[in-house]
Amino acid sequence: MAAEVASVVAAFGALSTADQDKVREALLHGDKGNAAVDNAGAKPRGKIQAMSAEVVDSNPYSRLMALQRMGIVANYQDIRSFTVAIVGMGGVGSVAAEMLTRCGIGRLLLYDYDTVELANMNRLFFRPEHVGMTKTDAAAKTLAEINPDVELESFTSNITTVDGFEGFVRSLTQAPLGFQAEPPLPGGPVRGKGSRVDLVLSCVDNYEARMTINQACNELGQPWMESGVSEDAVSGHIQLLLPGETACFACVPPLVVASGIDERTLKREGVCAASLPTTMGMVAGLLVQNSLKYLLRFGTVSRYLGYNALADFFPTMEMRPNVQCDNAACRARQAEYAALAPEREAAARAAQAAAAAVEEPQVVHADNEWGIAVEEGDGEGAAAGGSGQQSGSTEAAPALPDGIQYLMAKRDEVDESTLAELAVGRTDTSLDDLQKQLDALNSGP
Amino acid sequence: MAAEVASVVAAFGALSTADQDKVREALLHGDKGNAAVDNAGAKPRGKIQAMSAEVVDSNPYSRLMALQRMGIVANYQDIRSFTVAIVGMGGVGSVAAEMLTRCGIGRLLLYDYDTVELANMNRLFFRPEHVGMTKTDAAAKTLAEINPDVELESFTSNITTVDGFEGFVRSLTQAPLGFQAEPPLPGGPVRGKGSRVDLVLSCVDNYEARMTINQACNELGQPWMESGVSEDAVSGHIQLLLPGETACFACVPPLVVASGIDERTLKREGVCAASLPTTMGMVAGLLVQNSLKYLLRFGTVSRYLGYNALADFFPTMEMRPNVQCDNAACRARQAEYAALAPEREAAARAAQAAAAAVEEPQVVHADNEWGIAVEEGDGEGAAAGGSGQQSGSTEAAPALPDGIQYLMAKRDEVDESTLAELAVGRTDTSLDDLQKQLDALNSGP
Repeated sequence: MAAEVASVVAAFGALSTADQDKVREALLHGDKGNAAVDNAGAKPRGKIQAMSAEVVDSNPYSRLMALQRMGIVANYQDIRSFTVAIVGMGGVGSVAAEMLTRCGIGRLLLYDYDTVELANMNRLFFRPEHVGMTKTDAAAKTLAEINPDVELESFTSNITTVDGFEGFVRSLTQAPLGFQAEPPLPGGPVRGKGSRVDLVLSCVDNYEARMTINQACNELGQPWMESGVSEDAVSGHIQLLLPGETACFACVPPLVVASGIDERTLKREGVCAASLPTTMGMVAGLLVQNSLKYLLRFGTVSRYLGYNALADFFPTMEMRPNVQCDNAACRARQAEYAALAPEREAAARAAQAAAAAVEEPQVVHADNEWGIAVEEGDGEGAAAGGSGQQSGSTEAAPALPDGIQYLMAKRDEVDESTLAELAVGRTDTSLDDLQKQLDALNSGP
Repeated sequence: MAAEVASVVAAFGALSTADQDKVREALLHGDKGNAAVDNAGAKPRGKIQAMSAEVVDSNPYSRLMALQRMGIVANYQDIRSFTVAIVGMGGVGSVAAEMLTRCGIGRLLLYDYDTVELANMNRLFFRPEHVGMTKTDAAAKTLAEINPDVELESFTSNITTVDGFEGFVRSLTQAPLGFQAEPPLPGGPVRGKGSRVDLVLSCVDNYEARMTINQACNELGQPWMESGVSEDAVSGHIQLLLPGETACFACVPPLVVASGIDERTLKREGVCAASLPTTMGMVAGLLVQNSLKYLLRFGTVSRYLGYNALADFFPTMEMRPNVQCDNAACRARQAEYAALAPEREAAARAAQAAAAAVEEPQVVHADNEWGIAVEEGDGEGAAAGGSGQQSGSTEAAPALPDGIQYLMAKRDEVDESTLAELAVGRTDTSLDDLQKQLDALNSGP
């Protein structure tokens, strides 16, 4: 090692640990002195101002922008205007963060309080060199190296504490010092009240943290997606939660909680849950694919999608809100959603009329000089199948189809009758009735 | 920024670019002055002699070995005796390699001839620091860092050339200098004739390379799995190919080839296919999950599993061999498979009898001193449902169910009648008839 190098390393070694972190930060992000000239491949690239579809080896976005040319996504570059919060940097959250980073998402908020261990190496993303770092630091470092265009904010905190919950809600609504909140995309996905985040992804491994996210999102009216992998590592699920519109996480509680067992008593000394990089990667893939479809408005956004790895079975279902949900914020969002039904119906009629109007000129024969047209149907088919449409699965499904299990249900602890009792079916109540029921509930003490 | 921090950053800025790289390297990996000593995890770990189920943070296998305790896999540690060859280190192959590495597979053979570009950064695995390296070198380096227990061999060659094909077959049958072939696991998956590989995974992006792998595997009788992602990035598939038993890749050729179009003419200047890290990651997950089920004999091994990302639809089907397949090696394997039918049936009967015998003592009441037993059925239920069973889906499916497309089919170039003409249905011919037909074909000029 040259004397100059040794002297800088020694000067570094003499610093306090906190100062060493600051130096490391300065050298990694931002001002790197004269650095980074040669070694074309290894040097970090500068930020790219606008996504380009140009087909050259040096363009990291050419194969994403090709989605537009192929007619899959109408406006891929809109992805840069979205902010996504990922809670939990485990086997699902870290891979979801990497996928969104490589897709060129605008901003990511990352939450975890844990540190990387060798026992995490059976899942993708973290590498042995990260052992001992906090998961948020290791993730932010790796993601910044992969794609410097993505704005990253990391929060090393436990959201399930009282302070943690307040900090979590604050982070969703207020940009921290030195950061600026992206304005919502006009016509884009709905954000929660005062929220600077387009979508929250829950990638946590316990009930308490899920209920915390549920509470924050219900209070804000914030759309979010939940994900989970079973303790035996061979099944998982994702679920879209739109406060007031779909079931919240408390509407259909996991059975272990419904039956009054504290989940902490289930974790025994010296026993750990199984996990596989395949199942975790699959669930992250399903979650981010559904997020891309939701944010960029293409394909069918699944409301609930399960994965049974042993049978390669992928059940879907619809989960409607429980009018008797324990969560007051959920009931308030349900009332708001019901009250807006006339507006939604009017908007749907207008959109249908607009689609029919756009459709019409295409029905006219190109070489028909009299403008005579044979109309086929009313254009509804085209409107329903277009790539710009976004809709959940609308088929009625039994509340708990074959192959679907509650995340923490134990075969030995839960009997069939409890399962049937807690199942939430399709509500046939009219919106007016629902409103009356909610008003009655809200007028109570 | 404190004065000490600023002074170190300034000293760093004054260095030459090469020296800055050295300092950065020193601070990031390895000797970090006084700081590095306690950061135990950052130094590479040594090889681990035997997989342990011990639940400690430093055990990279605890959550994989937990699959045994949870009753999912009978012998997880057998994974160390398997050798898997992965052809193609693109968006699917590189992630498949990482998953198998983190699962602790015994040996991986990696094949590719391409180099890493920034345009590959929209898929998982490769990082900007790898740009300019061959994909095999970058993959081998990263995988060795992630899990030094996995034996890696990398082959930087194009298997579709004449020399490349010979080298490919040689690499499957002969261990290179300095390497030793693992013996096949007794009672484990069948290897091809003279093969040292338990499973070949095809993760290539073109027809020619798939046909090359098909030829090699048909000649050896080598089990393999094929994978693919569509050019519009929103669908993919995996397929298990057991020479003689299932359709080979030439039995049902992709329509673009069947209709006589050279696929190279389809690639236009300045146009590239779309790709997404989600779809690629999902297909890698499906592929490696199916590989784990095949190698470790648990769950249902899918013969064909499709993924339609727009609709979250996962079609499965059975693909039987085409008795008129163009590929002579496929027809020879079909004849061998047919000839062994009596042996397979005898073995199945013996296994069933053995399972029934094992089952019997459990039927006897534990506290029944006279040994009186009530037998329920013949033990078949237990034999069929056990986790040690391995079977493909046996349902007859239409040759091309809804939602399944040939990999390279183009909506504009292929008509429905061609599709119907080329479809291979279930063969109702008896095994004797099949044998006679094949004898007739083989006795020709």
